[in-house]
Amino acid sequence: MSRAWLEQVQFNPQGLVPAIAQDAGSGRVLMLAWMDRDALAETMERGEAVYFSRSRGRRWRKGERSGQVQRVVEIRLDCDGDTVLLLVEQAGGAACHTGRESCLFRRLENDDWEIIDPVLKDPETLYGR
Amino acid sequence: MSRAWLEQVQFNPQGLVPAIAQDAGSGRVLMLAWMDRDALAETMERGEAVYFSRSRGRRWRKGERSGQVQRVVEIRLDCDGDTVLLLVEQAGGAACHTGRESCLFRRLENDDWEIIDPVLKDPETLYGR
Repeated sequence: MSRAWLEQVQFNPQGLVPAIAQDAGSGRVLMLAWMDRDALAETMERGEAVYFSRSRGRRWRKGERSGQVQRVVEIRLDCDGDTVLLLVEQAGGAACHTGRESCLFRRLENDDWEIIDPVLKDPETLYGR
Repeated sequence: MSRAWLEQVQFNPQGLVPAIAQDAGSGRVLMLAWMDRDALAETMERGEAVYFSRSRGRRWRKGERSGQVQRVVEIRLDCDGDTVLLLVEQAGGAACHTGRESCLFRRLENDDWEIIDPVLKDPETLYGR
């Protein structure tokens, strides 16, 4: 399989590129994570989001523990080639490890961050703690 | 003015945080750029997006040359505090320096990046070259 498309992606000095996941249906921005070259290639091949965890130093199939898989509908690239956008269908309706739809659940109001989203899934259920 | 909200933002070792700009009306993801602490504070105070250009090493008011200002409707923060989302009204309807609505105008199709958006504004008009 040709990998010419991968050559057009500009990875940073750590070999990573930021990837935004957006819900293909609602348009909600769900999260931002990072991908190395292999994670991006695997995302395309599997049709499910695979990221690179900087804290754990390894690739990570979104949903591998929680089941909250992201099925990839489209992969987009920006003008500079250094940002990826995934349009996804979010299994279970919750992208965030807190059990919320989106990781971006805090809104700045009156100089404070207000939580604007409900918890849809009990994190203990998602992660079996 | 209290800056306690700024203390909850996790800037990377370079003092930067990624900021996603999303059109508040259409929901289209327009771009990803970076902010330092002062850019984020100034974005809140001005109500218009201010970023930090890593290539130029300075803050940059979006639209300062092109007029393509982003009026900020909401500022959101993610669960880890290390990603910012701006909901914006994009002046002129084109966020990208290429004159397109969104910087994320390439879609992966058959192992190649296909341009899916038209040029709405002549870049020469935007930047006066």
